[in-house]
Amino acid sequence: MTQKILVLPGDGIGPEITAEASRILAACQARGLDVEVEEGLVGGSAYDVHGEPLPTETLEKAKAARAILLGAVGGPKWDTLEDLAKRPEKGLLGLRKNLGLFGNLRPAITYPQLADASSLKPELVAGLDIMIVRELTGGIYFGQPRGIEERNGERVGFNTYVYSESEIERIGRVAFEMAQKRGKKLCSVDKANVLEVTILWREVMERLAPEYPDVELSHMYVDNAAMQLVRAPKQFDVMVTGNMFGDILSDAAAMLTGSIGMLPSASLNESGQGMYEPCHGSAPDIAGLGIANPLATILSVAMMLRYSLDEPALANRIEDAVGKVLDDGLRTADIASVGTRTVSTAEMGDAVLAAF
Amino acid sequence: MTQKILVLPGDGIGPEITAEASRILAACQARGLDVEVEEGLVGGSAYDVHGEPLPTETLEKAKAARAILLGAVGGPKWDTLEDLAKRPEKGLLGLRKNLGLFGNLRPAITYPQLADASSLKPELVAGLDIMIVRELTGGIYFGQPRGIEERNGERVGFNTYVYSESEIERIGRVAFEMAQKRGKKLCSVDKANVLEVTILWREVMERLAPEYPDVELSHMYVDNAAMQLVRAPKQFDVMVTGNMFGDILSDAAAMLTGSIGMLPSASLNESGQGMYEPCHGSAPDIAGLGIANPLATILSVAMMLRYSLDEPALANRIEDAVGKVLDDGLRTADIASVGTRTVSTAEMGDAVLAAF
Ligand SMILES: CC(C)[C@H](C(=O)O)[C@@H](O)C(=O)O
Ligand SMILES: CC(C)[C@H](C(=O)O)[C@@H](O)C(=O)O
Repeated sequence: MTQKILVLPGDGIGPEITAEASRILAACQARGLDVEVEEGLVGGSAYDVHGEPLPTETLEKAKAARAILLGAVGGPKWDTLEDLAKRPEKGLLGLRKNLGLFGNLRPAITYPQLADASSLKPELVAGLDIMIVRELTGGIYFGQPRGIEERNGERVGFNTYVYSESEIERIGRVAFEMAQKRGKKLCSVDKANVLEVTILWREVMERLAPEYPDVELSHMYVDNAAMQLVRAPKQFDVMVTGNMFGDILSDAAAMLTGSIGMLPSASLNESGQGMYEPCHGSAPDIAGLGIANPLATILSVAMMLRYSLDEPALANRIEDAVGKVLDDGLRTADIASVGTRTVSTAEMGDAVLAAF
Repeated sequence: MTQKILVLPGDGIGPEITAEASRILAACQARGLDVEVEEGLVGGSAYDVHGEPLPTETLEKAKAARAILLGAVGGPKWDTLEDLAKRPEKGLLGLRKNLGLFGNLRPAITYPQLADASSLKPELVAGLDIMIVRELTGGIYFGQPRGIEERNGERVGFNTYVYSESEIERIGRVAFEMAQKRGKKLCSVDKANVLEVTILWREVMERLAPEYPDVELSHMYVDNAAMQLVRAPKQFDVMVTGNMFGDILSDAAAMLTGSIGMLPSASLNESGQGMYEPCHGSAPDIAGLGIANPLATILSVAMMLRYSLDEPALANRIEDAVGKVLDDGLRTADIASVGTRTVSTAEMGDAVLAAF
């Protein structure tokens, strides 16, 4: 049966980078991948047309799709919207929640060709390969009660950081299984010396551990994890943590590889339906200039092929093509360095297609 | 009137490092500083004696003191205590809360003598000088309701991230005033695209800004702040944020200087009463070996002299003495490098005293 793919370009550089990724998708179709590709609106660009960041039509298309490719959402144009529910970010959060995409996989890999681009000393990041597993549909992002209200004559803002045992167990299993397929080390990050919700988190991780005897489980406080990522990132294999800590740590980890323009991500639900997007944001400052790096989005297609479409061979081909283009010395401006050739978004797409 | 100083050695390396700092305090007394120094128990070592991490006697002494010098708390010995209220960390949190020490100042400075010790490339951290202002008595650390309870047939853990306008305003003013005395740039860190409590945070910071027209206020999402600290830390002057984000970002910032064994901190209330402690932890793995670095604790005495005792000249003398000892090539093991001389905790204390 033909499966559906929904492409959501979003805002900022989103349309430029998804355009190149769509060309790779089309090339996969030419090689026999049986999918039907649609487009839709999300984020600020959806708000501009429909008055909301996640129109019903987009949500319906997303539900019907096996996989979604998202560019990026957000930008200064919508930052001043009074109503938080109308902000571009709510389009993204709404997709995650409505499709139950609780398992966020964020690889932090140093591409050997780019190790010098890291702000860390090369020996600390060469060969770095961490997988951060972030819970994506719970925690403080979605906890109730939340709001701003009057108490004792002044306004008070509040949010709730909440996890149930089953939510923790579900993401824990994703992380343990990931560790089994990789280096067999899992570090669970919490703040169990202060927060009750993360005491439960740690307890559930401990309870799961005997079911994965080949995986070595450790625990680390989030402040220490932030330090250890900076000090010696190669000590980590798989990390698992909640929504908020995962947001912070995965961005720090991505940046320290020096390869942030290259890093894809996957957000999966229990049936393998997934949303795929680059780790970087919508970069409104360079939107429309044709200079954005499409590689993280192209590599997100590879993740899609691997995790939602069961096409590992095609995924490998894309990753190899990207490696070859880097070996050839082609770079978009964000990853350019002495001795390399700076190319445009479209030229980079051309090159990957040619190597595919 | 003679002011009281309370020294709380705490756990792990705490007793060793506060011993050296106490010698510097005594040297200040010899130079005319009119203080009376007492000792007390806190953390795991207090639990071992009194069955609680913050005995009433310690709290009373702390309230009566103008300033507290704390070593560090915590260690594996107490990590398995079922009752969170008995854990060493609660001693520290109890002191902060009971004394109303809402203003946590965490400098992240690269000592020129140690720039090579950073995991970042030297040019990115040379001359780095950030002041992180962290709110310390509110936010998710203390928010109610909190706990673990049964809901719909399973256990659920929950904590509350809450700030009132007056709490935000109070820490905002500390940060704006700090920026006025420094580089006049203040970056407020929040997650206003997701969390209501930080929408209020941002709003209050904006409202305060016109009262400090010489300070340039900017806002950054916490995930981006974690990335920017790794990418280009020198873009920051003063950063202000809530308790949890401050915990994470200040540890990352401290680590990336390469000088973490050197960094002191201050926690102040509205009357200038303060608690002073090194940024690093209790390092149970090296406790009792006589090799811990006492400099962060010695520099915490300098902060105490500056912020609670109004003795800036003595504070400068201590800082100069530490600089001289580093110039002379003396290092404890944690900051040792080729060409320097590794010394013990006590030898380092001797050297600072000799240079004082
Ligand atoms: C845009 C924002 C809501 C989002 C998040 O915080 O989850 C982003 O930072 C991410 O990590 O995907
Ligand atoms: C020990 C712990 C409770 C404490 C905190 O989280 O505040 C520590 O990490 C710190 O930053 O002082």
